Amino acid sequence: MTRTSPEPVAEEAELAELYADLARQGLVPLWTIREGLMPTEPTPRAKPALWRWDELLPLAARAAELVAVGRGGERRAISLANPGLGGPPYATPTLWAAIQYLGPREAAPSHRHSQSAFRFVLEGEGVWTVVDGDPVAMRAGDLLLTPGWCFHGHRNVTDRPMAWLDGLDIPFVAQMDQGFFEYGPAAPEDAGTPPRSRSERLWGQAGLAPVAALGAPAPLASPLVAYRAERIDEALAAQLALEDEGHPGVLEPGHAAVRVTNPATGADALPTIRLEFHRLRPGASTPWHRSSASAVWQVTAGSGTAEVASRSMTLGRGDLLAVPSWAELRFLAGTGGLNLFCFSDAPVFERLGLLRQGTRAGGSTR
Amino acid sequence: MTRTSPEPVAEEAELAELYADLARQGLVPLWTIREGLMPTEPTPRAKPALWRWDELLPLAARAAELVAVGRGGERRAISLANPGLGGPPYATPTLWAAIQYLGPREAAPSHRHSQSAFRFVLEGEGVWTVVDGDPVAMRAGDLLLTPGWCFHGHRNVTDRPMAWLDGLDIPFVAQMDQGFFEYGPAAPEDAGTPPRSRSERLWGQAGLAPVAALGAPAPLASPLVAYRAERIDEALAAQLALEDEGHPGVLEPGHAAVRVTNPATGADALPTIRLEFHRLRPGASTPWHRSSASAVWQVTAGSGTAEVASRSMTLGRGDLLAVPSWAELRFLAGTGGLNLFCFSDAPVFERLGLLRQGTRAGGSTR
Amino acid sequence: MTRTSPEPVAEEAELAELYADLARQGLVPLWTIREGLMPTEPTPRAKPALWRWDELLPLAARAAELVAVGRGGERRAISLANPGLGGPPYATPTLWAAIQYLGPREAAPSHRHSQSAFRFVLEGEGVWTVVDGDPVAMRAGDLLLTPGWCFHGHRNVTDRPMAWLDGLDIPFVAQMDQGFFEYGPAAPEDAGTPPRSRSERLWGQAGLAPVAALGAPAPLASPLVAYRAERIDEALAAQLALEDEGHPGVLEPGHAAVRVTNPATGADALPTIRLEFHRLRPGASTPWHRSSASAVWQVTAGSGTAEVASRSMTLGRGDLLAVPSWAELRFLAGTGGLNLFCFSDAPVFERLGLLRQGTRAGGSTR
Amino acid sequence: MTRTSPEPVAEEAELAELYADLARQGLVPLWTIREGLMPTEPTPRAKPALWRWDELLPLAARAAELVAVGRGGERRAISLANPGLGGPPYATPTLWAAIQYLGPREAAPSHRHSQSAFRFVLEGEGVWTVVDGDPVAMRAGDLLLTPGWCFHGHRNVTDRPMAWLDGLDIPFVAQMDQGFFEYGPAAPEDAGTPPRSRSERLWGQAGLAPVAALGAPAPLASPLVAYRAERIDEALAAQLALEDEGHPGVLEPGHAAVRVTNPATGADALPTIRLEFHRLRPGASTPWHRSSASAVWQVTAGSGTAEVASRSMTLGRGDLLAVPSWAELRFLAGTGGLNLFCFSDAPVFERLGLLRQGTRAGGSTR
Repeated sequence: MTRTSPEPVAEEAELAELYADLARQGLVPLWTIREGLMPTEPTPRAKPALWRWDELLPLAARAAELVAVGRGGERRAISLANPGLGGPPYATPTLWAAIQYLGPREAAPSHRHSQSAFRFVLEGEGVWTVVDGDPVAMRAGDLLLTPGWCFHGHRNVTDRPMAWLDGLDIPFVAQMDQGFFEYGPAAPEDAGTPPRSRSERLWGQAGLAPVAALGAPAPLASPLVAYRAERIDEALAAQLALEDEGHPGVLEPGHAAVRVTNPATGADALPTIRLEFHRLRPGASTPWHRSSASAVWQVTAGSGTAEVASRSMTLGRGDLLAVPSWAELRFLAGTGGLNLFCFSDAPVFERLGLLRQGTRAGGSTR
Repeated sequence: MTRTSPEPVAEEAELAELYADLARQGLVPLWTIREGLMPTEPTPRAKPALWRWDELLPLAARAAELVAVGRGGERRAISLANPGLGGPPYATPTLWAAIQYLGPREAAPSHRHSQSAFRFVLEGEGVWTVVDGDPVAMRAGDLLLTPGWCFHGHRNVTDRPMAWLDGLDIPFVAQMDQGFFEYGPAAPEDAGTPPRSRSERLWGQAGLAPVAALGAPAPLASPLVAYRAERIDEALAAQLALEDEGHPGVLEPGHAAVRVTNPATGADALPTIRLEFHRLRPGASTPWHRSSASAVWQVTAGSGTAEVASRSMTLGRGDLLAVPSWAELRFLAGTGGLNLFCFSDAPVFERLGLLRQGTRAGGSTR
Repeated sequence: MTRTSPEPVAEEAELAELYADLARQGLVPLWTIREGLMPTEPTPRAKPALWRWDELLPLAARAAELVAVGRGGERRAISLANPGLGGPPYATPTLWAAIQYLGPREAAPSHRHSQSAFRFVLEGEGVWTVVDGDPVAMRAGDLLLTPGWCFHGHRNVTDRPMAWLDGLDIPFVAQMDQGFFEYGPAAPEDAGTPPRSRSERLWGQAGLAPVAALGAPAPLASPLVAYRAERIDEALAAQLALEDEGHPGVLEPGHAAVRVTNPATGADALPTIRLEFHRLRPGASTPWHRSSASAVWQVTAGSGTAEVASRSMTLGRGDLLAVPSWAELRFLAGTGGLNLFCFSDAPVFERLGLLRQGTRAGGSTR
Repeated sequence: MTRTSPEPVAEEAELAELYADLARQGLVPLWTIREGLMPTEPTPRAKPALWRWDELLPLAARAAELVAVGRGGERRAISLANPGLGGPPYATPTLWAAIQYLGPREAAPSHRHSQSAFRFVLEGEGVWTVVDGDPVAMRAGDLLLTPGWCFHGHRNVTDRPMAWLDGLDIPFVAQMDQGFFEYGPAAPEDAGTPPRSRSERLWGQAGLAPVAALGAPAPLASPLVAYRAERIDEALAAQLALEDEGHPGVLEPGHAAVRVTNPATGADALPTIRLEFHRLRPGASTPWHRSSASAVWQVTAGSGTAEVASRSMTLGRGDLLAVPSWAELRFLAGTGGLNLFCFSDAPVFERLGLLRQGTRAGGSTR
């Protein structure tokens, strides 16, 4: 509907004078901005945007030749800046996504911050991320967490470089003024390179919790900080196999999906970031869907197409897609199927009763 | 500490070329912005700011002469724009605070939105706010809620104008792209003017819940939408009386405080906004305190001084003070004591494990 | 169905010898007792039972002439023993109901126990129950709590005797071996007789919580320990008035009901006992209902009929009705209406996913 | 202290007459029974008791020769009757423990009940328990759940008999009148013998939940119904290895312990039964401990000694020990170490705020 009001009952001049006086006092009249400020449904400035892994990786490699990793800068991470947001390194208004790169034998210094973070490894191996003193191996397909306020640093113990995806809630925390940061040792505390972290050894068996940890209140972030490629693959494969056998399990026909959870609570593994893995059978597609959560998707294997709003984008391995709030979205898998990793800000809004899901029709459910 | 790194190992020219290529791809190198993006502690752009009721009210009255209330603009509300935020009508990065004004016999149309809202009445009476069809009287000292997605409109049934404070999570919802809005009837559905709302009649007795409402999951927002001046006063007075009698109850010596809660859950009455009333004895003062939550305070009675960061501001009745995240704050009551209403975004960050409290020393507790 | 098995494939003699050997080892074969042990639906030993206030009160008065109140016996309380349970002072397998009686100027010593307790006052006044040092006036129609492990004693400050209903979870705690008990002062600590307890002054306003109490985890039992007759009456009357006005509120046509809750959590005021007040309009009746919870009902005003299973019982003021698990129950109000107080063990089983509700048809919902 | 009161102020005759009148009315005077009814600390009738696997197994085998398994009796299960409880098949006032035995090719019919159940397999294999149509292999060292109201039957597909431990909350549910029971097919629905159940395939990866299952409210009982020997062993071994490496993980020096949890909530896998596995190093011992929960322990491997109250009992593989509420308990491992499985009623009382832990000194913590 078009705005029919307020009907000015006054001379334009008096009105102009009022608005000037308001401005002088740091005041804004709602009626002049209401529709833009409180739209019928979300009108994000962020735009659907795609970044190609093939283009990100060489740029990261070039940076490695030109810039050292060290205290202050802290990380050799190159972040995606949503074109709609006009500058800041935000993939969406709440989410940070970056490619991080460590050269042979390089280490990134230890620090901690209130921001929640994860690393997802598309390819390569040889880096250990040390989370509160616990060395966690990073291998292709693994998802590693560094929950808020845990010290963490990274060390490449090989002669080959390694790159991976960093995801954080930096934009949310920055805009909300909730950021705290503290330096740790210049190099990760523990130089060990165990195949499995202590976190996995204590929390890595489904439904078996260490009694010693159960006295204290359950942690908001997961005490399990490594989710391994083999286990993720097994979980997704099982859903599709069950579908073949005629049993429930898949999210939709031909579409398997697992959510990364905190084994101590069953809730999202990170309080501000939802982490999921999706697998589409060859040729399968998802129904149109929209969510008030914003998200970033990365293709972990296979290929296909993403249709976002009116745009269609072909997807290849490693490609990163930013999806703003309430954008209509569907995926179509190529002949080799389509595997996706997704992170979103859904837990923030779910906890606050704000999260909505909808279909293309625009029907929305609360 | 000053940034010592990354040590450029390259010709400036090559580096410049890399940064240009990154910019071209919509990419940002973390190491050039890390310290600004992830500060040691919050560095809000918002500034402590004070607005005088004596100045707000006449401006609102002037607007009433020049601008009608109607569909589209929806409300005659004039909002506080924090000087640090450079324009948008945000008192803090998450909170909206405005003075709303209705002339004699005026009505504001009905609508609903995902934003949570409340009205606090400094003075006057004669308006009924109709919440999902339930007419709720607004009188001096009352706090009224319009939880997210409840239809609401306002009607002045008297021959005198009335003004009050509107508080919402508009800035949070807008920046997070969570806003949904829907028009309702052009005038509030129910023209009744009962002294007590149906909400109060069902939920207004402490610890007595209607069994009929207990089947469904407890609502995230309070089913009780009116908190009356007399009850708030009685609760605050009781804490100070108990202090006189040597019993616990006050928050600090000479400082009574009550939080507005959802009787169905005991949690904050609104999922995104914490609402509290505070009363300081004559001459009393609060210790220095800082919180990562941002807040807006309004003087409901008495006078005194607010010391925020390095600034000292005298406070009179109705004055509104915006306090950004992590600003050091203390209040000193005048000879007549100091009564304050406060709303903040604390519940959002408390739920996410991000909220921190500290003292001037800067010691922070999580 | 009739039991068709186990088919003895053996000589009776061998079987008898086996059973004897089992018994000798303290072993029991399930197949000989399964149907009794795991019935199709609850088959309580407890029976529907009614006790007349007119008969209880004189007996309590006689006891007052013959037995002093003092340390060891602790209370002059006479408890209802369900005829089906063969002796122990249990109104139902989980609930204790007793009439307690204090003569003029008498006091009952202070003690505490893990059992949760409440007092409901049918008539009279003049006794203060002191809960953790807080004197709580007891008047006709009031409900008073003494949560588990709170010290409590009672003092009659008048020249008239007073009697009331005591309700506890003694049978549950006793059978579950969860009882802890500790003596306090021989007389209640605080001899004050304030009209309102400190508990009410801090927690007595709906939706207004003392900020000082919100740091610690919310208590499982209510910090509000007095629910006053006037407020209960107002809450029930409001539901019926709203029904007259065509608005929701009542539990069923002509049937108002409020549950006593913990204002800090919205859950039941006591973790093991559900407390409710019900009001039926003159001539109204409830539909047939059954619950796996057991309950005790007391008529607080009016009269009527209770139909329990196949029995019909006329109800007068003060009469106490014990209703076992899964008994079909309905109430019919007399010409003056029927007011009831009810306490049950529902919260225990609701928390454990065991509670079921059903209708006479026997349909059960989980 | 000895009971000093009530001081009879009356002729014995009058008192006797009063007590007779009370008894006639089904009434019991508290003061005559208070100390027994509300002891200073739990005084369970149940006694510490030990049953030898070597004696149970032959009796179960004999039963198999004499009694068929079939509809009505339902199971060939022989339950432990605590000697202190005088008859009923209760290992403790809340817990059922039985040895169940299936001969070659035998099947136990399908049924469901509100009671929660589990099977722990000390030795053998070849039986599949079918839980709501999902065949679950039973092998040595495995723990299998049949949550309340899930259909379940058992089928032995081999030519060898198999025996295992059944644990349920039958005594709790029976005394609380919460039992519902329903017959299913005479033979388990699904005759399949897959190595892994569908439940494990969907929920068996730590911290990876099927998104399709996350729409509905999280189930009170675990959707994962099989906890495998290898995983339990790995979890216990990891804690002891971490202790060797100087890291946290064990419950106490030389004492590893894991709790069986619901991966959808992190809470106990069954709402009424806590399930834990413990491992003591050779020669290790636990400190004296007491809990208001009652428990049953089974030795899964190794040997040692249990000291309960004043008794000392040597423990061998398979032996079953019933431990009443508040009994002082400690374990001493033999030279081969001691592995224990434990189930208790702790979750019931923890949820209600009744659970207490203490040491031999008798100090108790709430």
